[in-house]
Amino acid sequence: MKFQEMTKEEALSLKNTLMAQYDAFKAKGLKLDMSRGKPGADQLDLSTELLKFNCAKNEYTSRDGVDCRNYGVLDGISEFKAIYAEILGVDTDNIIVFGNSSLNVMFDYISQCVTHGAGGEAWLLQKGVKFLCPVPGYDRHFAILEHFGIEMINIPMTAEGPDMDLVEEYVKDPKIKGMFCVPKYSNPDGITYSEEVVERIASLKTAANDFRIIWDNAYNVHDLGDESDYLGSILKICEKYGNEDMVIEVASTSKVTFPGSGVALLAASDKNIAAIKKRMSVQTIGHDKLNQLRHAHFLQNAQGLKAHMKKHAAVLAPKFDIVLKKLDAELAGTGIAQWNKPKGGYFISLNVLDGCAKRTVELCKEAGVVLTPAGATFPYGKDPKDSNIRIAPTFPPNDELETAVDLLCLSTKIAALEKLTA
Amino acid sequence: MKFQEMTKEEALSLKNTLMAQYDAFKAKGLKLDMSRGKPGADQLDLSTELLKFNCAKNEYTSRDGVDCRNYGVLDGISEFKAIYAEILGVDTDNIIVFGNSSLNVMFDYISQCVTHGAGGEAWLLQKGVKFLCPVPGYDRHFAILEHFGIEMINIPMTAEGPDMDLVEEYVKDPKIKGMFCVPKYSNPDGITYSEEVVERIASLKTAANDFRIIWDNAYNVHDLGDESDYLGSILKICEKYGNEDMVIEVASTSKVTFPGSGVALLAASDKNIAAIKKRMSVQTIGHDKLNQLRHAHFLQNAQGLKAHMKKHAAVLAPKFDIVLKKLDAELAGTGIAQWNKPKGGYFISLNVLDGCAKRTVELCKEAGVVLTPAGATFPYGKDPKDSNIRIAPTFPPNDELETAVDLLCLSTKIAALEKLTA
Repeated sequence: MKFQEMTKEEALSLKNTLMAQYDAFKAKGLKLDMSRGKPGADQLDLSTELLKFNCAKNEYTSRDGVDCRNYGVLDGISEFKAIYAEILGVDTDNIIVFGNSSLNVMFDYISQCVTHGAGGEAWLLQKGVKFLCPVPGYDRHFAILEHFGIEMINIPMTAEGPDMDLVEEYVKDPKIKGMFCVPKYSNPDGITYSEEVVERIASLKTAANDFRIIWDNAYNVHDLGDESDYLGSILKICEKYGNEDMVIEVASTSKVTFPGSGVALLAASDKNIAAIKKRMSVQTIGHDKLNQLRHAHFLQNAQGLKAHMKKHAAVLAPKFDIVLKKLDAELAGTGIAQWNKPKGGYFISLNVLDGCAKRTVELCKEAGVVLTPAGATFPYGKDPKDSNIRIAPTFPPNDELETAVDLLCLSTKIAALEKLTA
Repeated sequence: MKFQEMTKEEALSLKNTLMAQYDAFKAKGLKLDMSRGKPGADQLDLSTELLKFNCAKNEYTSRDGVDCRNYGVLDGISEFKAIYAEILGVDTDNIIVFGNSSLNVMFDYISQCVTHGAGGEAWLLQKGVKFLCPVPGYDRHFAILEHFGIEMINIPMTAEGPDMDLVEEYVKDPKIKGMFCVPKYSNPDGITYSEEVVERIASLKTAANDFRIIWDNAYNVHDLGDESDYLGSILKICEKYGNEDMVIEVASTSKVTFPGSGVALLAASDKNIAAIKKRMSVQTIGHDKLNQLRHAHFLQNAQGLKAHMKKHAAVLAPKFDIVLKKLDAELAGTGIAQWNKPKGGYFISLNVLDGCAKRTVELCKEAGVVLTPAGATFPYGKDPKDSNIRIAPTFPPNDELETAVDLLCLSTKIAALEKLTA
């Protein structure tokens, strides 16, 4: 029964029943954290072997004969590049390998645009620079833009990706300098951009000639089942329109091997690679090549990487199932919640009754389950409808996850009833 | 005999003799690189054991119970902090541990000042910002400043450190925003700042309230013999004068373990640590903690680190001896060259006859030995006297080093004679 169709009496009575259940949860003294897209310990165990090291020479020498213990090789070793060149569908020359954090790669790129521009004047010296932000989206992208004082404009997500009518309209303004995208299994919606959307992005006619799309391909190989959503190579598609300088693509092994000790990389046009290397040559002598080599040995090639991801899927798919089954059982037909069923990625995006996300998250927190703060999936932490909640099911063990989602469903209902009976 | 006291005939005759020797060198077809302060393979072998890993749980769990494979711990694990807190004489709370590159740490800090200031307005928005650069100095420091358009002013080095009379005069100008220092076994002079110089630096009264000294303590434990030059804890000394916010100290294990895969760190005041962490929280989720943990296990503590450095000294001291003995034998008393005899660090600084450094380096290059380019030890690559050459003796095997220094001495003489007979 839809909650909106209940009489006030029915609603109050249900609320009382649920509050009793809620108090029972509180009494359990839970302490669960579902706030971040963090792999669980069983996922980490899948890669521990990559650290095995017996001090043999071939364990520190790259296939090009580089002693990876020493200085050098600014843009990364070729065997690691080769793996991701195949995964992303780009040439190895268009890849730079970094340290352990793609967030760091994105931060540094935006920082470079702020101090040195992207072909034009430094963004800091141009007044009123703005970025488009598909919403809901990734809070850490928004944090980078806020840090550098770049104004953020919400672009609603559709089932196929960002609302491209809006994007095409906005980019007529030369102050609009870019857009952050998570094109595959988007954070938090789990949406993969359709071929049409990708084509429209690649063919954008922007007023700013220093417009940059940060293509955060964080979940490029992170399928949950046997089927993988299709996403073309953005660089190659941009080339068709002479727009290859518009895109900076990033990825990493953070959720392939180790979040703390993975390898990040960037793919870009020749011109952008040159500009980034120029900055890097001042910034560092080179990133950790031993870690790049470890990863190349462990993953072997694109096929090896994909085979490894199947093991992650075997751990993660049951977790997603737990959440989706409970949402179905508890919230389907209530009219107070909608959610997606992603084929990959790290999140389930739950949209509760407008005006109830903060309260729902608060109820969970008071009973010992920490979720991503409501609003975090929007620029400046402001969800205009106060509706979106990001569920991150990966970190808790399955039994704890069950409990946490029970509480979440309960809290969703209570918050909705509080609003409907107010 | 001093070259300057030769008759023109004597000089020309000597030049002819030397040119014959030089041609013999050329015929050897040498290919030696002495351009950078890069450890040799025998030094790298001293640390290969640190990579040993048998997948035991204590190999990836920190003493605080952190699973170092996963996300988290923005500022680094406590066991690594503890080692360098003792080495640098600071509290662990005043240390942040980073990735593999202290150059990256310095670049990022300057970048932060450029975009967000150091308590005042962003440096990019203040016109005509300048830095003091003790010369000769480290080319990569100068490259950072040049990259960000910060004007560099030469401060001559004395035997005790930078010329402090000049420094104290310059800092009366509010446009002077900082100074880069390598306070122990300076690059390239091998000079350790005297206690008086350090005290005068720590007590500077600067017109700019956003003045920052980058204290690149790269060679803090890099003694060549049993004696170590004394250098006090700059942060503690600055505290006496209420100047603790003026200094950002960096160090790394690049020349302790592996140049490519070491661990860098920063020490600073509470206020600066907070400002840097604020930026970092946007920039990354955390650096490679597994590598921090490996290092903590391998080095154990400050004593362990110092014991490990003795092994490096055993490899490096003979290399420095080779260079110094040859310089003594070939150039002492000629009046065309002066050099230092450092007790630590990575370089020997050779000052040839004014106007002859470029030519000397060129002669070496033409005969197959690449040195650090003449001028590199000065801002903008401009040595006003064209006199300083940085000798980096660490990388070549000893027999190659002998050959290279023979050629360098010969080239120094030829270049001088060319000038004197011109």
